Order: sequence, then structure tokens, then C-alpha cells
Amino acid sequence: MAINARRLWERLMELGEIGLRESGGVTRFSFMEKERQAKDLVAHYMKEAGLSVREDAAGNLIGRREGSDAGAPVILTGSHIDTVPDGGKFDGALGVLAAIEALQTMEEQEIIAVHPIEVVAFTDEEGSRFGFGMLGSRAMAGTLRPEDLGHKDADRISIAEAMKSAGLQPERLHEAAKAPEQVKAYVELHIEQGKVLENAGAPVGLVTGIAGPLWQQITIAGQAGHAGATPMNQRKDPMQAAAELLNYIYAETRKFPNAVATIGQFRTLPGGINVIPEQIQFSLDLRDIDEADRDVLEGRIRDYAIEVCRKHLTELKIDLLQKVAPAPSSPEVKEAIAEAGRLAGLVDLPELVSGAGHDGMQFNGKWPIGMIFVRSRDGISHHPAEWSSEADCGLGAEVLYHALLRLAR
Amino acid sequence: MAINARRLWERLMELGEIGLRESGGVTRFSFMEKERQAKDLVAHYMKEAGLSVREDAAGNLIGRREGSDAGAPVILTGSHIDTVPDGGKFDGALGVLAAIEALQTMEEQEIIAVHPIEVVAFTDEEGSRFGFGMLGSRAMAGTLRPEDLGHKDADRISIAEAMKSAGLQPERLHEAAKAPEQVKAYVELHIEQGKVLENAGAPVGLVTGIAGPLWQQITIAGQAGHAGATPMNQRKDPMQAAAELLNYIYAETRKFPNAVATIGQFRTLPGGINVIPEQIQFSLDLRDIDEADRDVLEGRIRDYAIEVCRKHLTELKIDLLQKVAPAPSSPEVKEAIAEAGRLAGLVDLPELVSGAGHDGMQFNGKWPIGMIFVRSRDGISHHPAEWSSEADCGLGAEVLYHALLRLAR
Repeated sequence: MAINARRLWERLMELGEIGLRESGGVTRFSFMEKERQAKDLVAHYMKEAGLSVREDAAGNLIGRREGSDAGAPVILTGSHIDTVPDGGKFDGALGVLAAIEALQTMEEQEIIAVHPIEVVAFTDEEGSRFGFGMLGSRAMAGTLRPEDLGHKDADRISIAEAMKSAGLQPERLHEAAKAPEQVKAYVELHIEQGKVLENAGAPVGLVTGIAGPLWQQITIAGQAGHAGATPMNQRKDPMQAAAELLNYIYAETRKFPNAVATIGQFRTLPGGINVIPEQIQFSLDLRDIDEADRDVLEGRIRDYAIEVCRKHLTELKIDLLQKVAPAPSSPEVKEAIAEAGRLAGLVDLPELVSGAGHDGMQFNGKWPIGMIFVRSRDGISHHPAEWSSEADCGLGAEVLYHALLRLAR
Repeated sequence: MAINARRLWERLMELGEIGLRESGGVTRFSFMEKERQAKDLVAHYMKEAGLSVREDAAGNLIGRREGSDAGAPVILTGSHIDTVPDGGKFDGALGVLAAIEALQTMEEQEIIAVHPIEVVAFTDEEGSRFGFGMLGSRAMAGTLRPEDLGHKDADRISIAEAMKSAGLQPERLHEAAKAPEQVKAYVELHIEQGKVLENAGAPVGLVTGIAGPLWQQITIAGQAGHAGATPMNQRKDPMQAAAELLNYIYAETRKFPNAVATIGQFRTLPGGINVIPEQIQFSLDLRDIDEADRDVLEGRIRDYAIEVCRKHLTELKIDLLQKVAPAPSSPEVKEAIAEAGRLAGLVDLPELVSGAGHDGMQFNGKWPIGMIFVRSRDGISHHPAEWSSEADCGLGAEVLYHALLRLAR
């Protein structure tokens, strides 16, 4: 193997200490202290790899290795180092650290490619803090709008305010955008977060496309009342409407072969045990690799929600948080990864779909994109038990190393 | 009308000035200055009504009107004059003042019943200060245990300490208990705190029983996972189990005529939009005036919960927070109230259930009990906007007057 799998593993474990909680899970939210510490550590690794380090106007941490042609478009790679609440040590972190490892290997082997290569730790991929993700990659794609910075966290702090408190200038955000001609391709290594590779007995896979997430916030307003003094037939209880709607969402989603529906957040107001809720609010994460299927499902859920809220004399509000189109991988990046797999001794990489969204989606249609997946133990992710073996991480980094060399040659 | 509705209203408004806050709400906590002022004013009204006034060892304020048979068991009536924080002028106060008005009317009309009648302003019905309510009625029922006095308020003052600072002797509390043979019946007038009477267009109603609250905390544990990368058929999603369980709870509760089910609290962990919840937790408040019905419903919900959690490969935990026995109204008190309604010109009083708890619950099984409800505007209670009209309060007092005369004759 060309890359140093042990060094990569040690960095993964070291970075995983930042934001570590008693549960064994990691929490690093954008523009907050733990994320800052993580960026500082990753910047240190980048310097060890001989990269020139900077942060752009969106807070993206970028390490650059020059090529022999100073004016050639750059090969972008990387991932993110923010996490979901109580997440794992691999989601995002592996892609950033494997890219640094690949470039450090080139440095140690004194390999100079034609194209420059940049490793990016993108700002806030997960969207855990503001309910709006892929901030850094949107900014680099030039698609982040000023109004997007109005999204607020649980403490009513907006993205713009959080950026300022982290020393960034929201009004200079456009400076983070790269022009189409500045980039040749984007390739990212990530853990699979599913069981396809595990079931196939393969350590590394080739991603054919990314399913697009649709995020909604569904609010149902009714009327509060005393839990004892209001008969069932006199209630305007948003919880009863929600119960029927949730059941419909799950049942209907199962009718589509590749669709998944997740309700990860749910809250009631005012929240007293003996008070009928005045309002309930929950998140809906709906995905499919087939955009048409997802659109049909979204429409059915909306129709049913209107009907069930009318039945319970409650008021419905659906806020769209994000709606991302599925992103197919580009032929040239897929070919580079397939060839890299052979160079890494893996014969044929299994092909699979990414159900999870990734920063590369933001570059869909602008630059060629592609992804490499590393096997996840039990398919678990966004959880303290998230795990990929040292050997698998090393093999994934080896494939990334060869893919970068092919794309940059 | 026999009673003086105007006098009752003026006393209601005067008493409502004590503890009045800028919000328009009233705060009077047990053993504190505002409650003392309120008791002094009510004692003054009792004297105006010709009653002999005393306070018992639990601080219950008692006004007594003698009957023609000095040894006959007493008819108890009354309510409470403590309040929730920022509560209304009617909750509790109306029952005490209407009872005084009824007895003052007897005094003015020179009606002597056979049985003595006592109006009681019970100590701390709400439990707002110590998180433990119905102190005075428990003491009178003889069920208040010495260890109950260990409950502490926000300043870590125990009930026993608060009693002492109010000049009471906790060690003499047993003196407040009445023997079974000392009481013939208990009847209380109270605001409805719901909308049943308002919807029925009726000023006054006959309470068929006080529902006992059963409080559970239901926890379902599954496995967190990435919202995009985990197919629907590979999830252990506690939210899907919860959705089915919630629907079952509501549907099954509707099968029982007087049962109500409320889910007022609901939370997901870890709470990320794109994370399948690892755990969900919600509260269940289940009430019925028929204990057998409530037990059957509780059992069915438990059985279904076990089944649905097994189906979704999730783990169920049900914690009991409290389980209070329902208190059905006694036939003889209901009959007296129904007849009193006709005497007050109201033809047929609508029958309804008290979902909220009241002091009479403490006498369930020891003495016959019954309650009269007065219409609440918009069903609002425990709030500055709590309101019942002067006319409705007067009609309620008129019904109480006739009911007391029938019970005491």
C-alpha cells in the first residue's frame, strides 16, 4: 500500500476525541468551540502533509497541494468535520483525513501531479445546528443565498450571527464561490452508513449517485386545554392529527422501493403532562434516488396532511427546509475510481447508491463528481457505535490516493 | 331566586383582589400572607352569614350553621381559596363563597334544617406550593400521613415547617380528621374548567364523578441510524412504533364513553432531522370516572404497546408516575342536585364528568359526595382569563342552596 493506514487511523482517533461525550458519541456543531478545535487540529495535519492552509469566507478549511501547471483547474476532495448530535468518529472525518493522507503520501513520495489538489473540510454539512446543511459546499458552488443565512438554531441565533461570532463576514460569502473553470473534478471518500458493502463482503465501493434529501418542518396547531376537562370529541388536538399523519407517512413510503422517511425531531407545546398540546412540530426527511417517486410521495403526504388536519380541526403548516435533486456520479470520476480500485488491488469495486446526502451534490451539474464508500460495521451511522475498521479505512484512502493521481495527472 | 347573586359577585370580586398581579391573575399559596388575608376576609363573610367560625388543625377555615338536631351528622360543602400561580378569581373561590351565600340566605329566610351544615375553605387544594395538593381535605378524611408533610416548596421549606410558621401544630393534625359517622354528605360547587356546559348552552351542570388521572411515561428504544442510508425494512425505529401506538391509544380511548387520553409531552433522542431516533419518550394522561373502564383501557394499551414494539424490534418501558382512583358521585347527592336544579328553574341539568381533581375525591368511599359545575367562558382555567358570568355564578349558588336544603332536611 502506498498510503500510511496507521497514521490515518491515529488521526481519526485523535480527531474523534474532540467533542466526545460520555455516550462515546461525538458532537461538533458549526461555528462552535468544538468545531473550531477540530479545524485547528486538521489544519495542523494539513501542514504536516506539506499543504498550504487557508479558510475561505464560508469557513471552509482548505489545504492545497500545487501541481506542475500552476494555471490548471484544481481537483477538489475532502468532506466535513461537523457532526450530528452524538454522532460517530468516521462520518465526514474519514474523507478529510484520508484526503490529507493521500496528499501527504504524494509529498513523501515526491509525486507532483499536473493539476493542483485541494482538500476541503466543508462547513456544516450535517445541518444539525440550523436545520440547513451543506453550507460550505453551497458557498463554494456559489448557490448559497443571503436569505439562507437567516436560518436559526435552537437559541434563535441565525447562521449570519453565528458566522460573525466565529470571526467571519457574511457579506463576503461570495468570495468562497469558485468559477466553473477553476475546478476539474470533485471526489470524496465517505463511510457508507448502510449495509450494502457489508452484505457484499467488500471493503470499498463505487458510488453511482446520491439520493436527494427533502426536508420539511411540519407544524400542526390546535387548541390547548385541560387533559381531564375536555372530552375526546371536543378537542382540537394536534397530536391526534400527527399520529395519523405519521402512520400514513411510514406506510406510504414503504410502497416505494427506494424511498425512506425519517421523523427525527418532534416537540409539543406547551409540554405539560396534563395539557392537550396547543401545537406540535416535527421534521420530515424524505429521500429517493428517483426524483419522480419522491415527488409523488411528497404530494401524497401533503394531501393526506391537509385532510387529517381538517378532520381534527387543526391548522397545518409545512415549511420546506431543503429540497435537493438526486446527483448522479460523472463518468470520468467513476472511471478514475474504478481504475484506482484495481490499482489498490481490489479487482472490481461494487457499485452502490448513496442514500445519504453529501457535499458533492452541491456541485452536481457544475463540476464532475464522484464518491468512494468504505464499509460501515452493521450499517450504523449517526450514532456512537458508528465504525469502520482500520484496514477498510486504509483501503479506502488507498483508492482515493490513486483516484486523485489519475484525475490530477 | 332565593340567593343574592349580586352579593355573591361582589364578594368574588373583592376576594379576587387579594393576590392580584399585573397580569390580572391571582396568586395565593398555602400558609403565606395572601392566603392568610383571604382567609380573614372569608371568615368575615362567614360571620356576616351568621356562621360560627373556626380553623382546624390543618388550617381548614370552617363556618358552621347549626341544624335542629344537634347530634345529626353534618352536611359538608365548600372548596378552596388557594390558587395556582397566576390563576383565576373563580377556581375554588366560587365554591366557598357560593356556600356562604347559600347559608346566609337560609339565615335571612330563617330556615333551620335538621342537619348542621359546614362551609369549608380547604387548605392547599392546588398543590402549587409543595407539589402535593388537597392537604386540607386529606387531613379531614384522616388520610394525610406525617411523612406527607415532608414535601418541600421551591425554597426547601417543608409543609410541616410552613404550618408551624403559620401558627399551626403539625403534631395535632389528626384532630382535623372527622369520623365516618360525623358527616352525612359532601357537595361542592366549582367552575367547570372545560367547555361541555358552554357547548351545551347550559349555565350549570351535574357532575357524575371525578376522573382519576393515571400518568405514565412511555419510553421506546430502538437503534439510531442515518436517515438516508438505512432502508425502511432494516430499521429499528421507535418513532414508527410510537406512531402506531399513539393511533391505537386515541382510537381505543374513544370506545369508552368517559375516557380521555392526552399525550402532552413527546421527545426524540438524539433529535437530528436526518437521524433515525434511538429513543422516543412520551407522557400519557389517561382518565375515566369508571375505574374498571380505565383499568381495561390501560391493559389494552399496554398489550398493544408490547406487540407493536416487538414488531418494530424496539424495546418498551412504561413508568407509572401516578394512579389516582376515580371518585364517582353518590346517587343521593346526585339526586339532591338534580332536584335542586329543577327548583332553581333549570329543568334538567346536563350531566358531565370532572376531568380535573377536587377535594371531594379525598372523601370517596368514606362519605357520599357530589359536585355542581358552573359554565366556564371558553373553557379557560388556571389562567387570568378564567371567567364565569355573574348570572351563571348566581344560578350555580341557587342550585347549591337547594341541594344543601335537601341534603340537610
